[in-house]
Amino acid sequence: MINELLNESTRTMKSSMIRELVASTRNIPGLISFAGGFPSPKTFPRDTLSKLYAEVVASEGMSVLQYGASEGDQELKKELLKWEGYDLNLDQLLVTAGSTNAIYYMTRCLVSPGDVVICEAPSFLGSLVAFEAVGAELAAIPLDLEGLDLNKLQQKVDQLQKAGKKVKMIYTIPDFHNPAGITMSYARRKALIEYAMAMDIPILEDNPYSRLRFSGSPVPTLFRIAHDEYHNTQIVTEIVSFSKILGPGMRLAFAKGSPVLIERMCSWQQKVNITPDCVSQRVAARFLSEGFMPQHLETVCAFYRPYLDRMLSAMSEYLPPYIQYTKPDGGIFTWLWLPEDMNADILFEQAKAHKVTFIPGSKFYPTGQEKFNCLRLNFTFSTFEQIDTGIASLGKLMNEFYT
Amino acid sequence: MINELLNESTRTMKSSMIRELVASTRNIPGLISFAGGFPSPKTFPRDTLSKLYAEVVASEGMSVLQYGASEGDQELKKELLKWEGYDLNLDQLLVTAGSTNAIYYMTRCLVSPGDVVICEAPSFLGSLVAFEAVGAELAAIPLDLEGLDLNKLQQKVDQLQKAGKKVKMIYTIPDFHNPAGITMSYARRKALIEYAMAMDIPILEDNPYSRLRFSGSPVPTLFRIAHDEYHNTQIVTEIVSFSKILGPGMRLAFAKGSPVLIERMCSWQQKVNITPDCVSQRVAARFLSEGFMPQHLETVCAFYRPYLDRMLSAMSEYLPPYIQYTKPDGGIFTWLWLPEDMNADILFEQAKAHKVTFIPGSKFYPTGQEKFNCLRLNFTFSTFEQIDTGIASLGKLMNEFYT
Repeated sequence: MINELLNESTRTMKSSMIRELVASTRNIPGLISFAGGFPSPKTFPRDTLSKLYAEVVASEGMSVLQYGASEGDQELKKELLKWEGYDLNLDQLLVTAGSTNAIYYMTRCLVSPGDVVICEAPSFLGSLVAFEAVGAELAAIPLDLEGLDLNKLQQKVDQLQKAGKKVKMIYTIPDFHNPAGITMSYARRKALIEYAMAMDIPILEDNPYSRLRFSGSPVPTLFRIAHDEYHNTQIVTEIVSFSKILGPGMRLAFAKGSPVLIERMCSWQQKVNITPDCVSQRVAARFLSEGFMPQHLETVCAFYRPYLDRMLSAMSEYLPPYIQYTKPDGGIFTWLWLPEDMNADILFEQAKAHKVTFIPGSKFYPTGQEKFNCLRLNFTFSTFEQIDTGIASLGKLMNEFYT
Repeated sequence: MINELLNESTRTMKSSMIRELVASTRNIPGLISFAGGFPSPKTFPRDTLSKLYAEVVASEGMSVLQYGASEGDQELKKELLKWEGYDLNLDQLLVTAGSTNAIYYMTRCLVSPGDVVICEAPSFLGSLVAFEAVGAELAAIPLDLEGLDLNKLQQKVDQLQKAGKKVKMIYTIPDFHNPAGITMSYARRKALIEYAMAMDIPILEDNPYSRLRFSGSPVPTLFRIAHDEYHNTQIVTEIVSFSKILGPGMRLAFAKGSPVLIERMCSWQQKVNITPDCVSQRVAARFLSEGFMPQHLETVCAFYRPYLDRMLSAMSEYLPPYIQYTKPDGGIFTWLWLPEDMNADILFEQAKAHKVTFIPGSKFYPTGQEKFNCLRLNFTFSTFEQIDTGIASLGKLMNEFYT
């Protein structure tokens, strides 16, 4: 009975193909996996959080166990502005149940079925399926080593607008891009902001990784540049996730942007969730107010850095010289470009037989816009030995491709 | 700029008018409020929860701070089935971030713009605005003292179907109805289930209050009756909230129903929230597995019972004899029917001047289908003295209406 009652978007909704891929390797004993996208549980500050949860519920339980404001916990919002050093009003800030949740609300506010969302090619699949579920058509713009290719962006937007399409937002992951590992250059960020302002197209800046910088100098976020250099807090909506810097189980993120948009996103939050978990919000507020964050981020970066170093040296040692890859200064992913005739979906099957897995690059493109000669490697879930062994196996398979 | 980019449903979305009403009374010193719908924070088991949060994060932090399954925490799901005494498969159960969240997913699965959701008149405004946000048209069916009026339901459905409308679900709050305080009779429940089965119209059973029974015998839920007596676990989707029995800040509820629908609701959860808060889910699992729930529910009911008694005796003493009202055996609300010519929206303003507030009944009807001679009283947020004084003031105002 239910099948016939489901609406069109629910009947045709895609699930993340990555889940199925990962499930297909689940029972392989001794598997070396570079497929993951989860933070290492070893980075979770369990003792501090355990103490804070106990204190918050015992001493503030009357308020944090009660319904909270849909706008988010006031104390958390004040701490967030202090932490990031912004002089914004609280109505420019919305706390949400993770960044996927904020991305959903923003999309739900702007997109009518058939409207276009610009995304990067490749991009984070979880966002792409959420855009599509709301009825968006996706236009994927290639990345170069400085980030989103602006010439191609302009051509595409012109072409779409000539065809009568409404381009509702530009979705970008400027820092330690998932899956491509690229960080957008400062010049490119400024150019993107100027273009978006000129065209009145909102930018959704997805920022889960910028605090996971192990070396090099941070590039200011798009929101920061728009705020500081253009005195514009409307054009960019920046969504910062706590999932990679505290713990994804707490389901916390926050969005900064235009008060009009934030207020409408909040109206959706009221209808969809009422509010994010109030206990976890207050715990995050205390984690910030008691000053734990700076030291914690240093610890997390110090934990991840050697794995990135090991991955880069293994790739340099074992991969054939014609394989190109990103050398990120942080985050949790690197990205490989294979020769045009090498298909990573096929390589995935071959590697599985050798007990190594990764995500083929094709999974990070909108349907019909796939590239097949690329793949994503996560470096934060394996031991040093697994990195060496796994990359050596991959290098061998690549070499065999041409023999 | 953003204003022009918002889509139709976001631009026209209604906010809860109740919020605005409550805000209009916020700064009145000495206000006696019967307007609330929040549980009393005195019922929150703070010490137990504080201990459980600390233990769960310290000893299971590696898993509960990590991403969890979109289906919900397996341990919590097993405990929920044990607690309720069902032999269902885990794929018939979805944990969500509160019941509003589950209601949103179910609506999002079934309703296309223009489809009809049947609701009770009156009904819970938070759900009505969520239905409308997804594009549903609302058809409100009056309640009598046994619950939803089935004759009127059948007439309305016939009329809608003749007009080519798709009726996608029947939304009901059978136990200690918000706002009407009514509990649907056993006979009416059976008749409703039989009608829904015959017509293939899913029932959404919203169950936040059934465990708050202070006297009388429990009536089995619609889901229980369908399961036990009709061997049908498809026709009713029951959504049980933890907000009134543990703490709304934890944002937890669970839905039981057809595996097809549950799976699709889970797909929406994956795109909207990924998962509910994993820490709070595991804490709720421990609260159940360590056996705290039965005693806790007794404590909560024992806490609320005297306030209901006091409210009913104050109403009997102070209200004019021509005022009819529900005498519930539990929950947190009672509902008053005023004479046809007495408008509760006007009474609200008069009462506000006398420092007493409540929610006028008109706020609980879909737009255009309002009744004005009714109002809702909450009895769990005031002291005994406030109940006496506030009801005496209301009675005086009602008497003055006819002089």
